[in-house]
Amino acid sequence: MNPILKSEQLEKQSLADKYPSRVTDVPVIMKREDPVLYSEWTEQSPLTREQSDFYEQNGFLVLDQFFSAEEITEWRSELKKLGDIYRKEEAEHVILEPESREVRSIFAIHDNNECFKKLAEHPRLVGIANYLLGSDTYVHQSRINFKPGFTGKEFYWHSDFETWHVEDGMPAMRAFSCSIALEDNYHHNGPLMVIPGSHKKFISCIGKTPDNHFKQSLRRQEYGVPDPDSLEMLRKEGGIHTALGSAGSIILFDCNTMHGSNSNITPDPRSNVFLVYNSTENKPQKPYSGQNPRPLYIAVRE
Amino acid sequence: MNPILKSEQLEKQSLADKYPSRVTDVPVIMKREDPVLYSEWTEQSPLTREQSDFYEQNGFLVLDQFFSAEEITEWRSELKKLGDIYRKEEAEHVILEPESREVRSIFAIHDNNECFKKLAEHPRLVGIANYLLGSDTYVHQSRINFKPGFTGKEFYWHSDFETWHVEDGMPAMRAFSCSIALEDNYHHNGPLMVIPGSHKKFISCIGKTPDNHFKQSLRRQEYGVPDPDSLEMLRKEGGIHTALGSAGSIILFDCNTMHGSNSNITPDPRSNVFLVYNSTENKPQKPYSGQNPRPLYIAVRE
Repeated sequence: MNPILKSEQLEKQSLADKYPSRVTDVPVIMKREDPVLYSEWTEQSPLTREQSDFYEQNGFLVLDQFFSAEEITEWRSELKKLGDIYRKEEAEHVILEPESREVRSIFAIHDNNECFKKLAEHPRLVGIANYLLGSDTYVHQSRINFKPGFTGKEFYWHSDFETWHVEDGMPAMRAFSCSIALEDNYHHNGPLMVIPGSHKKFISCIGKTPDNHFKQSLRRQEYGVPDPDSLEMLRKEGGIHTALGSAGSIILFDCNTMHGSNSNITPDPRSNVFLVYNSTENKPQKPYSGQNPRPLYIAVRE
Repeated sequence: MNPILKSEQLEKQSLADKYPSRVTDVPVIMKREDPVLYSEWTEQSPLTREQSDFYEQNGFLVLDQFFSAEEITEWRSELKKLGDIYRKEEAEHVILEPESREVRSIFAIHDNNECFKKLAEHPRLVGIANYLLGSDTYVHQSRINFKPGFTGKEFYWHSDFETWHVEDGMPAMRAFSCSIALEDNYHHNGPLMVIPGSHKKFISCIGKTPDNHFKQSLRRQEYGVPDPDSLEMLRKEGGIHTALGSAGSIILFDCNTMHGSNSNITPDPRSNVFLVYNSTENKPQKPYSGQNPRPLYIAVRE
């Protein structure tokens, strides 16, 4: 178990940065300093009161049948098309599996693809984003994850905010992710797992990030990885929730919710579209690591 | 989809071997030639009629709360002791994780450990074994799988019989595995997945096994791996069943049931004891691959 401790090094860093990470040799658990929900709920809100309360309390929310079968069919065929193109043609914003050279993720799809640009601007999604973050919003990051059958790789536990803060300079926890299921999420095909309530604590990770490590980290994480003791504590407090839902369902989760997924050896793929909405009042600054910011296809900076 | 086809090469091989595998360049699906259940059910049988029918039909059976909490506590502490010993001391029958050097499996525990020898001879287990296989039985293979939290690796789909037949010379499908859960099996910690009904078909795998490849194969399979099309067909017919159960539950599954498990990034370990019972009338012959048999700690030959 990790005590909530502050080393001298951390104290110094904290003056300028309320969520220091990758600066000490011991992991530190800190309290979240920001709200989770940035609006007052009213009857005009795009979520029910129960949904809104659940999200605030647990750090995630599954909305089943959010999109229609027709919409999903269209996006799935667009995904197939893009996968076929980028299997043959290298591009900076396309990440391949290290071994099979299959396409793992395509970034910045809200920017360079008409079909997914329209999806990112979908009024129902933008309505929820503006409500949760209490301001105008924009897409900070977007991607398609292919998560194929048979060889779907695991994603280890992480808080997105930890990386966006340290490597992209996102100041506050005022962003969230929306994962749109293009296939059915079963227990057996490597679905998203979240630790309910974990968004209320910040796990400061150990180690220092090397320069330009992002290329590697999109395939395999080595920095910004939470320590086992902290994960065990979060799990003891909140349990593990597996986010299931059929194609067309969406999962919203706070930028600081601890999440990950196991591998997928089954024949059932689990591709999804991933959109990160950030508040226009929370635009990235200079990265807190003091290093160069990551490229624009990973983190939009305007 | 794979047609049930027979190449010339396969025909030739089939004269001597009813389950040829790793002899052709295309995968072949064959019918099971052996019974699943080798006894008539009576009221004296150690399984209920429903349990017995379920096993015969689906190729597996979960029996919850088969062992007591006290028994599990004893075996778990024995497992911890063995893990501590073999982390420091290399031994032929102990398999380490390639990267972390943690203990992955310890083989032949029914032979070289008093505590697990007693477990393998447990009258209730032996009663079920003799019933299912319709004869006296003995332990063909045994092991402890550590399946730790955070870093539990996946096991890809396979039929045990395929390997035991090709590499150990087991003549017929007259064996089964019993996995004893030393920890709770949740959906999220890489539980055993089986394809119900898959035990009634034999998937002949492609390729040829190199000599002495078993050392490597216990860590990562490369031979005896079923092809994606055949797996997809089996999954379409039978679905995927995830075998859950609390510590003390046991899972019985036929030697030819297609099974595997995803990775486990959660803090929850999933260690188990694994016992393979074979009929005394089904003792290993010369391996069907024509190669040298694997060592006795992997496949007992008497």
